Amino acid sequence: MDESKTKYILDEKDMPTAWYNIQADLPEPLPPLLHPVTKEPTILPPPLFVEELNKQEFSKERWIDIPEEVQSIYRQWRPTTLFRAHRLEKALDTPAKIYYKFEDSSPAGSHKPNTAVAQAYYNKKAGVKRIATETGAGQWGSALAMACMYFGLELKVYMVRISYQQKPYRRNLMEIWGAKCVASPSPDTKIGQKFYAENPNHPGSLGMAISEAVEDAATHDDTRYALGSVLNHVLMHQTVIGLETKKLMEKMGIYPDIIVGCVGGGSNAGGMFLPFVKDKIQGKKKNLRLICVEPTGSPSITKGLLAYDYGDVAGMAPIAFMHTLGHNFIPAPLHAGGLRYHGMSPIISHLVKLGYLEAKAVPQLATFESGFQFARTEGYISAPETNHAIRVAIDEALKCKQEGKSKTILLAHSGHGHFDMSAYDAYLAGKLEDFEYPEAKIKEALSQLPQIPGK
Amino acid sequence: MDESKTKYILDEKDMPTAWYNIQADLPEPLPPLLHPVTKEPTILPPPLFVEELNKQEFSKERWIDIPEEVQSIYRQWRPTTLFRAHRLEKALDTPAKIYYKFEDSSPAGSHKPNTAVAQAYYNKKAGVKRIATETGAGQWGSALAMACMYFGLELKVYMVRISYQQKPYRRNLMEIWGAKCVASPSPDTKIGQKFYAENPNHPGSLGMAISEAVEDAATHDDTRYALGSVLNHVLMHQTVIGLETKKLMEKMGIYPDIIVGCVGGGSNAGGMFLPFVKDKIQGKKKNLRLICVEPTGSPSITKGLLAYDYGDVAGMAPIAFMHTLGHNFIPAPLHAGGLRYHGMSPIISHLVKLGYLEAKAVPQLATFESGFQFARTEGYISAPETNHAIRVAIDEALKCKQEGKSKTILLAHSGHGHFDMSAYDAYLAGKLEDFEYPEAKIKEALSQLPQIPGK
Repeated sequence: MDESKTKYILDEKDMPTAWYNIQADLPEPLPPLLHPVTKEPTILPPPLFVEELNKQEFSKERWIDIPEEVQSIYRQWRPTTLFRAHRLEKALDTPAKIYYKFEDSSPAGSHKPNTAVAQAYYNKKAGVKRIATETGAGQWGSALAMACMYFGLELKVYMVRISYQQKPYRRNLMEIWGAKCVASPSPDTKIGQKFYAENPNHPGSLGMAISEAVEDAATHDDTRYALGSVLNHVLMHQTVIGLETKKLMEKMGIYPDIIVGCVGGGSNAGGMFLPFVKDKIQGKKKNLRLICVEPTGSPSITKGLLAYDYGDVAGMAPIAFMHTLGHNFIPAPLHAGGLRYHGMSPIISHLVKLGYLEAKAVPQLATFESGFQFARTEGYISAPETNHAIRVAIDEALKCKQEGKSKTILLAHSGHGHFDMSAYDAYLAGKLEDFEYPEAKIKEALSQLPQIPGK
Repeated sequence: MDESKTKYILDEKDMPTAWYNIQADLPEPLPPLLHPVTKEPTILPPPLFVEELNKQEFSKERWIDIPEEVQSIYRQWRPTTLFRAHRLEKALDTPAKIYYKFEDSSPAGSHKPNTAVAQAYYNKKAGVKRIATETGAGQWGSALAMACMYFGLELKVYMVRISYQQKPYRRNLMEIWGAKCVASPSPDTKIGQKFYAENPNHPGSLGMAISEAVEDAATHDDTRYALGSVLNHVLMHQTVIGLETKKLMEKMGIYPDIIVGCVGGGSNAGGMFLPFVKDKIQGKKKNLRLICVEPTGSPSITKGLLAYDYGDVAGMAPIAFMHTLGHNFIPAPLHAGGLRYHGMSPIISHLVKLGYLEAKAVPQLATFESGFQFARTEGYISAPETNHAIRVAIDEALKCKQEGKSKTILLAHSGHGHFDMSAYDAYLAGKLEDFEYPEAKIKEALSQLPQIPGK
């Protein structure tokens, strides 16, 4: 392999034609989802999800074919580039080799289209006319708007108000692609009205916006709901990231020692990690470290509980066994809006429990410091979410320097920060704040977990 | 060739290793540059430009090697993708085949880094410590900021005030990459002070900002000036766009019937066109049409004169023979800030005169309408400048439909619009205006051209 090269791209013909479903390889199955009212094991509510996505959610098949219609859209920007961060390595003066898999190049600019396109496709195929969803920073909402545009579906997006205000251009993006976007909590749903009436400037939360979108889908016959993270089928669609990386690295004759990804709901990290976790489950790569990076302002794995909790604020969504800060927890107003969620993907939580994944929480300022260093060396402006992963990749590279070890570090570069410049503006002006997680509030929110009989 | 494919990329090993210099093939040489005071033929003033760039400006060598240091940076994002616009074609119901060469993928997001990296390299090599430049929309300023960051050079950018106000995030981008950016006219230079004192909120113009940057470089020993368009060496550096496209299309077994590019100073269109113009000069491709698209709010080719004029407002820069609206002309406050220039590249003007290039002017609203249609089909959000070229590509594709002709249209997609969302916001809100060129103002400005003895 030519070590001086900067970028590596898989041949289009070597792109994955099936998603990897880790449920086929789990040494212990995932705890069941529970119905929010009966608290009995349940599927995803059919008024919310089409059958094919429900099947995928619980499938034990190892490989699920990617429909040609989805592959053909993937090919507009996939396979994505794997960069070697030569300039960053040099600036850090580290013997570590840092690679980053670059999910910035779709029109929506993040990894989210990998599942958005698949979900829009299955909904269209099932005759659905309209989709309702929520979005935090707007990465998911814009990705789904793009996907719905490709398939001719209507879309209504409930956007967490603090992000709606901080990131007006993400709303423009959704509108350009034809979606309707409102600030959540909104007056458009019953659950939204409740919070909106209390405070029309309520900052909102992902859990609250989920409740609104779920209610919208449940109360409109032609409408289904779509979730951009957390669920099993979402993480499965994202495995194209890890599958492409793994195959390319095989061709390059390398294998990572450490893989780093940011986690909010877990879809980006899951997408990169899962094909590698397979190797760990099979006992092939015991020393491989997979690190989930979350914000100290929303530290579900590092400070929450592994417990059954609602995915939304209203308690209308199924109850999942996951790391949670409590469904009533309102995360700090971080610029990394995509990481502001009280819960975690059950798959990620399960793999943390089984010891396959590690987790770290990092404060906001430190992530921007690293995103800044990344931009000043590699050039690319990263999303605030991505900056979390960059922080830990840099920390690990500096550890390699101390220890004189030449480890291979792989970074899941989940998206660009072109629509997050207000955050960089605040950072440059010295106005960006750190958020300590409010211990008392976490404790309070954790005291309100649902009671599950026999658990 | 597989007609269903969406994207085509040249092999990295087939990337051009030399820039194409059209001066070797011009059937008639370019008129000389004139000294602003003596009005005698001149080189680029050495206090402003390093020797290597001066040599390139006047070279008659057909191929000029791209230094390995420059190639290595190009390879971070080059060769860029050539997309087939299947979805746009379908929406237009046209038999035309539309391809777009996508210069959006560098960290700066436009074609500008192609010359920024080269200029920073030659300045660094000559021992220069600091560069001064101007920028309109901020695409050039941010590209040069990125390039100076790569080579460890200081940079001061004079940004046209109207764009500075409309596009605050482009300033952030420059700052992230380490440049100092001020609104022009600024109090930092003598010429700036003159306009600034009259009106501290003066909208500015590229010609004015050029004067400030030129003065800055002329009055600081360690500083040279860099121009992002207009000059011969700039267009030459940009020929990597056309060279890549031509080689790739050869491999695909196709050749365009029509090539479309937007023109402000002419570097993007020049970069794409010049390698194809060579074929026309050699009489090989007589039917190939090359269309320069300019805004009606700054119509230098379609409404200006082909005459000797200053490149800047202060009359400090050399006098060039070009299409001009007069150096005192202040273009309309278009969102396509990169197209707001009173003059035109002498090479483009010369080729228009010789009949190798056509020109069209399009109004702002029509360009956004087309950019919107592009985003709603192809997904990508284009720069306001790029929308001008998209407009004419669509018009030509619709003509093909009327005529039942399956022409191949090639579009120079010069950059993304991620930092121009305020313009899309205005468009979506119905607040975007058209600008008629002010005939009387053009007439007045054209009455102030410099008097050249014997011309």
